[in-house]
Amino acid sequence: MATRITLHYCTGCNWMLRSTWMAQELLTTFDGMVDELTLKPGTGGIFEVWVNNTRIWSRKEQGGFPDIKQLKQLVRDQIAPEHSLGHSDKPA
Amino acid sequence: MATRITLHYCTGCNWMLRSTWMAQELLTTFDGMVDELTLKPGTGGIFEVWVNNTRIWSRKEQGGFPDIKQLKQLVRDQIAPEHSLGHSDKPA
Repeated sequence: MATRITLHYCTGCNWMLRSTWMAQELLTTFDGMVDELTLKPGTGGIFEVWVNNTRIWSRKEQGGFPDIKQLKQLVRDQIAPEHSLGHSDKPA
Repeated sequence: MATRITLHYCTGCNWMLRSTWMAQELLTTFDGMVDELTLKPGTGGIFEVWVNNTRIWSRKEQGGFPDIKQLKQLVRDQIAPEHSLGHSDKPA
């Protein structure tokens, strides 16, 4: 099954730059493991991260933004549970 | 109809960073006009830009990369032909 990550972010809150930064981090860390990474502009303070049809982060539910190490662990747990993240595997 | 831009780039050629930079430029210039922008890792020297099902750039056919002004004109011509790009509307 193809692996698709989606970063849904609020444009009015100026979150495009941090979302594209996170995209760069994820595309680097999971090089060869991600088929598509989609940036999805939104409104109303939204910030969500999806891996295929599973939402792994919701600003409204979890409050704020994930630390990049935490985000990588959450993505890894979905797409390659056995894949070690090296330094990023220490507790967030 | 939703507007989806896809940047298909070769990871082996280290083109992820320039692709995410172009994504930032397009998401800024066409704020509110793009529903999704997808980064699609590939191989073999590929660099293509699609707007929905129309390919607007192919490195193999057009040779090299588009100048950012040119890329914005090509995207604009697909999604909002009447939309002025200001400075970016001068000839590429």
